[in-house]
Amino acid sequence: MQRSGRVILYLGGARSGKSRLAQIRAESTANELIYVATGQAGDAEMARRIRQHRAERGERWRTIEAPLDLPQTLIQNDAVRRTLLVDCLTLWLSNLMLAEYDIRKARRSLVDALAASNSTVLLVSNEVGMGIVPDNTLARRFRDEAGWLHQKIAAVADEVWLVMAGLLLPLKNERSMIES
Amino acid sequence: MQRSGRVILYLGGARSGKSRLAQIRAESTANELIYVATGQAGDAEMARRIRQHRAERGERWRTIEAPLDLPQTLIQNDAVRRTLLVDCLTLWLSNLMLAEYDIRKARRSLVDALAASNSTVLLVSNEVGMGIVPDNTLARRFRDEAGWLHQKIAAVADEVWLVMAGLLLPLKNERSMIES
Amino acid sequence: MQRSGRVILYLGGARSGKSRLAQIRAESTANELIYVATGQAGDAEMARRIRQHRAERGERWRTIEAPLDLPQTLIQNDAVRRTLLVDCLTLWLSNLMLAEYDIRKARRSLVDALAASNSTVLLVSNEVGMGIVPDNTLARRFRDEAGWLHQKIAAVADEVWLVMAGLLLPLKNERSMIES
Repeated sequence: MQRSGRVILYLGGARSGKSRLAQIRAESTANELIYVATGQAGDAEMARRIRQHRAERGERWRTIEAPLDLPQTLIQNDAVRRTLLVDCLTLWLSNLMLAEYDIRKARRSLVDALAASNSTVLLVSNEVGMGIVPDNTLARRFRDEAGWLHQKIAAVADEVWLVMAGLLLPLKNERSMIES
Repeated sequence: MQRSGRVILYLGGARSGKSRLAQIRAESTANELIYVATGQAGDAEMARRIRQHRAERGERWRTIEAPLDLPQTLIQNDAVRRTLLVDCLTLWLSNLMLAEYDIRKARRSLVDALAASNSTVLLVSNEVGMGIVPDNTLARRFRDEAGWLHQKIAAVADEVWLVMAGLLLPLKNERSMIES
Repeated sequence: MQRSGRVILYLGGARSGKSRLAQIRAESTANELIYVATGQAGDAEMARRIRQHRAERGERWRTIEAPLDLPQTLIQNDAVRRTLLVDCLTLWLSNLMLAEYDIRKARRSLVDALAASNSTVLLVSNEVGMGIVPDNTLARRFRDEAGWLHQKIAAVADEVWLVMAGLLLPLKNERSMIES
């Protein structure tokens, strides 16, 4: 499958500015913009924050929620001259684990969707593996799965950026014939 | 406000060598050197370590303690041909949180002081956001505040360095007309 | 002591792909390959995983176990046209701490062995210092020791790489006259 889109991964720690930088990058193009939210409004406070973020993004953005079926969402919304911003992968992974999905299968579906994408897809994710090994078994499994997910997505991505203190460090940058 | 100084941020993990590298950089100039310590001697062991570090820095350094009023300390000691080394920001943030200061206001004061500085200011800080999300609410708030603080300071800094294993990786490096 | 070998350090978070990249690098040369495992088969599950990894590495690799006496193992197996892959340093450090070894002395022995090595030595290690300060005293000591160990090894290494999402970022890269 030959894709015309571009896949860009933003990896960073908590409050590193990765979502903001991905958003700025998306808005720098003339593409139609879709925000793919993996977060869910579990309570009133969360619902309020989601509404606030949506208002701050402004009218250029359409928002789609994809807490679990992210690969399908990317495929259904795939189009040339469209940019999808997935925010964020670690939250998606956390949702998958809570819902006891087959992580390996979901990961493969996501990678396949990205590899075939005609949209530009920007993905934001948290680096969570550079602290002390957590005591908690679930936390250990989560950071293992996050690491494997990042590796698989980075392998098909055109660009991978490490974000720190709101600054960008290139980890991978392959030029394609069709720039978006 | 036009400043003549230079603002340099060293970000790194625990025992990454960031304080040592900042100190070497400070000593490479002919400037007058001031060490701005944000740590406090809470007990005898801490007091002993502070005295030891002070002795190791040697006679070129004057030490000022600024556990809370860091912006004011920078303003009061601002001068051309002077280098202030702030060690470290995460400890300052921790002190602010314990003393229940208004973090946003303190952060704004620090950024304003840096943006107007005639001294060269080197700031050392810990990257704390690349591990698993902590269970502890206070720890979660701390890493959020640390991330926001780093972003704001990086935005006004002339140089930002990631330090790992005693090695430097440039995150930002803007040349100014007045090198120090 | 003049060495003919090359010392290469791969630093990364959990599941960053560092072991795999070190292995690929080792296999890219015509050297004889020795895998220096610091892990121990504590239980049946661990023993099974060790056997599986060994089978996956294939016939070019010979495996030596060095849970504690890593410096001696490097010295005893030192030879021109040989590559030793040490996987991993953080596990070695953890073993030393559990066995109550003198960490500083062991670290110095390792650094001396590396500085005199005729083999190419690839070392894999976890960056563990970029999360929140752990509550646990032993965990805090471990991340301090890991940070110091990385600094000391990086100082004698010819190359140091940060690995993230299966991608490489150079932290240090000194060319030697004798490339391996």
